[in-house]
Amino acid sequence: MRLSNRVLAEFIGTFWLVLGGCGSAVLSAAFPKVGIGLLGVALAFGLTVLTMAYAVGHISGCHLNPAVSVGLFVGRRFPGSDLIPYIVAQVAGGIAGAGVLYLIASGQAGFSLAGGLASNGFGDHSPGGYSLSSALITEIVLTFMFLMIILGSTDGRAPQGFAPIAIGLGLTLIHLIGIPVTNLSVNPARSTGPAVFVGGWAIAQLWVFWVAPIIGAALAGLVYPAVAGKAERE
Amino acid sequence: MRLSNRVLAEFIGTFWLVLGGCGSAVLSAAFPKVGIGLLGVALAFGLTVLTMAYAVGHISGCHLNPAVSVGLFVGRRFPGSDLIPYIVAQVAGGIAGAGVLYLIASGQAGFSLAGGLASNGFGDHSPGGYSLSSALITEIVLTFMFLMIILGSTDGRAPQGFAPIAIGLGLTLIHLIGIPVTNLSVNPARSTGPAVFVGGWAIAQLWVFWVAPIIGAALAGLVYPAVAGKAERE
Amino acid sequence: MRLSNRVLAEFIGTFWLVLGGCGSAVLSAAFPKVGIGLLGVALAFGLTVLTMAYAVGHISGCHLNPAVSVGLFVGRRFPGSDLIPYIVAQVAGGIAGAGVLYLIASGQAGFSLAGGLASNGFGDHSPGGYSLSSALITEIVLTFMFLMIILGSTDGRAPQGFAPIAIGLGLTLIHLIGIPVTNLSVNPARSTGPAVFVGGWAIAQLWVFWVAPIIGAALAGLVYPAVAGKAERE
Amino acid sequence: MRLSNRVLAEFIGTFWLVLGGCGSAVLSAAFPKVGIGLLGVALAFGLTVLTMAYAVGHISGCHLNPAVSVGLFVGRRFPGSDLIPYIVAQVAGGIAGAGVLYLIASGQAGFSLAGGLASNGFGDHSPGGYSLSSALITEIVLTFMFLMIILGSTDGRAPQGFAPIAIGLGLTLIHLIGIPVTNLSVNPARSTGPAVFVGGWAIAQLWVFWVAPIIGAALAGLVYPAVAGKAERE
Repeated sequence: MRLSNRVLAEFIGTFWLVLGGCGSAVLSAAFPKVGIGLLGVALAFGLTVLTMAYAVGHISGCHLNPAVSVGLFVGRRFPGSDLIPYIVAQVAGGIAGAGVLYLIASGQAGFSLAGGLASNGFGDHSPGGYSLSSALITEIVLTFMFLMIILGSTDGRAPQGFAPIAIGLGLTLIHLIGIPVTNLSVNPARSTGPAVFVGGWAIAQLWVFWVAPIIGAALAGLVYPAVAGKAERE
Repeated sequence: MRLSNRVLAEFIGTFWLVLGGCGSAVLSAAFPKVGIGLLGVALAFGLTVLTMAYAVGHISGCHLNPAVSVGLFVGRRFPGSDLIPYIVAQVAGGIAGAGVLYLIASGQAGFSLAGGLASNGFGDHSPGGYSLSSALITEIVLTFMFLMIILGSTDGRAPQGFAPIAIGLGLTLIHLIGIPVTNLSVNPARSTGPAVFVGGWAIAQLWVFWVAPIIGAALAGLVYPAVAGKAERE
Repeated sequence: MRLSNRVLAEFIGTFWLVLGGCGSAVLSAAFPKVGIGLLGVALAFGLTVLTMAYAVGHISGCHLNPAVSVGLFVGRRFPGSDLIPYIVAQVAGGIAGAGVLYLIASGQAGFSLAGGLASNGFGDHSPGGYSLSSALITEIVLTFMFLMIILGSTDGRAPQGFAPIAIGLGLTLIHLIGIPVTNLSVNPARSTGPAVFVGGWAIAQLWVFWVAPIIGAALAGLVYPAVAGKAERE
Repeated sequence: MRLSNRVLAEFIGTFWLVLGGCGSAVLSAAFPKVGIGLLGVALAFGLTVLTMAYAVGHISGCHLNPAVSVGLFVGRRFPGSDLIPYIVAQVAGGIAGAGVLYLIASGQAGFSLAGGLASNGFGDHSPGGYSLSSALITEIVLTFMFLMIILGSTDGRAPQGFAPIAIGLGLTLIHLIGIPVTNLSVNPARSTGPAVFVGGWAIAQLWVFWVAPIIGAALAGLVYPAVAGKAERE
């Protein structure tokens, strides 16, 4: 598959991740009386990955996340030469997804970017008021486990065809745990998308959601092969 | 498979989509204290497609949606000669589903069609009061992505047998995002069913839910093959 | 597989269906502030069938429901000679499940059977006050569609191994639609279990939940082969 | 696979089960207005097992639970020589998971261990005030059924590759039923993790959550082979 096709698939997939995940949070989470809540948002984030993994996994591998690309590179599942094009496409897709969400959301009377457009944050900008230290632990540990799920379920010895279910619902699980702490990122492109529109604090705190996920992902790229032993690939 | 069998499967499947999706919205969404909310409705819509795709996918391909039939036609996965019979069966099934729902719902004291029977709408008839412009963007973009999921997960290179899960849960995801905007259609037959019973504004606004989904679907029929490159079919 | 093993599997499976489905309704649905609601109950009923279909489907076929056994018999997928033993085991399992639920639930101060132990009902005993006519339509139509899902997803031409997902989540969908109408049965054994303990009205209305599901299931046994055309089995 | 690798996989998996399951309960269940409730917690517990079963099932078998290891040993699916190392790794992983959760949760102003860190309990420490007798029945019966699902869905005659879905969603179902009774354990390692940090009553009541799950699991190890008849393994 040509790089241009793969990069386009990453763009569309990350567009979908941000539009679907942040969109459900902004539009539906707190809808009066029948809102989907954090459970619905967690499900939405996971289903963006599940659906794209079946739809474009055979094109690009469906990373949709710079931390995933880095983790797969460290774990020797992804060539370093493709790292930059993938990450650029992911960030562009995330910004495009946030842009379309902004267009839709602003069609409601009373809409304001002060609502945050589902940006990630800590301290005063954590949904539950969690500290920077909690935010760092949460993002590092949960990205580490996300990559363990990805590396494990795509191992040649795991049942074939099921990885998108494990990975997508794994992202749902991760959101069920951590939305109250940071609005949950584990994905620098997902964080960058809405931050570009919100500006201010969202940009100022963005570094956490690049550094922590990448640390966690890289650690998993080192740990999984050691745990899995030989033959971790087909 | 003979056309009569396939058309009958499309009728039953679309009947189920409207009875199940709109039925859960009308009967269960706002049930006092333990209602299923928009999350339950989103799950119900998705599961109508998931269940029918496993039940009748081998008979008719399980489109259940004129926009899907058009998108597959544009993407060269479905013959133009079958387009009209499929769409007629889908619309008839949608009306039948809304009819049975009406029979059930009217068995509760105080029932009124003024509740809308889960019809789609914008402006004053959008659940969250979203504008026509938000409605058009939402329906076009979400139908585009729905067709990308369908075209991708049924691509011969995707894991076999899992497409109904990706497509059904993809429809759930789409509802998690967009119910507040238009009550979410992405499906002209689903919109037409309840509108026939509700009349008035639901009929007057129905054009949006034919035009926008078909535009989005046709676009995906053009874009997917370009992204996927060669061999997008077995 | 010997009949004694198969009947034992049906007993355990139907025990699980009633303990899990009615149990989640009685114990968890209306738990203060964090209750699972009708959405959680719908998921629980579906997961009893999904889990048992993978756990004992290879032993007994995992009907867990007299209406399913009748529908499969009419559709020529199940021998008439096994009908009575299967139904006896299912009803016994349902009663045992309700019995264990009663033991657990009565360990909470203030427990009373007047709560209904999740029995099915109509009119004054419908959760939403729906009429007998709504109840009959709901139970007939939803059982018909349940059997269409079962007959279709276990058709030799459907993807292999996925039927438990389609059938289990189909039962979830059915509950999302219809709990407000009758507390949802589509299964005479599930209705009989709690009715035996509740007595009175639950026994008096029990006929509906034997007659309507069996009518719907038998209809599907006639309709599916006609829709599916030749070769509906391998 | 070497024992050291398998034991490490059990440690990581059980770490994930406690961090994910108890973490969602502590951090997200009662979040104001949009909390995930018991339904979200039930889903989280199940998804920890689903994700790990696809990620490390090919390494260690993914028990993550001393009762599961005992049940598989009784059912002749797991060698007795590995029982102690597996259980030690599971308990250590559970404690590590609770430890990381404690670190995250304590980053919120007003956090107190008096909230229980999702420890299991009965009587005054049962979420719904259920008696010891209800707790024992619940834990024995639900662990029995959990092991029936595990033994059945990994039987060589069941569809291959789907067991993680059945087992993971089975654990979700079990939580939907029983969280109000004991906060639901069916897993001594899951109970031990938070109890170590909470101390006091959580340690005093911990015996129930070792004894009852192991009884239920061992019973299933005896019953499943009898129900399944010959050839319950490939």
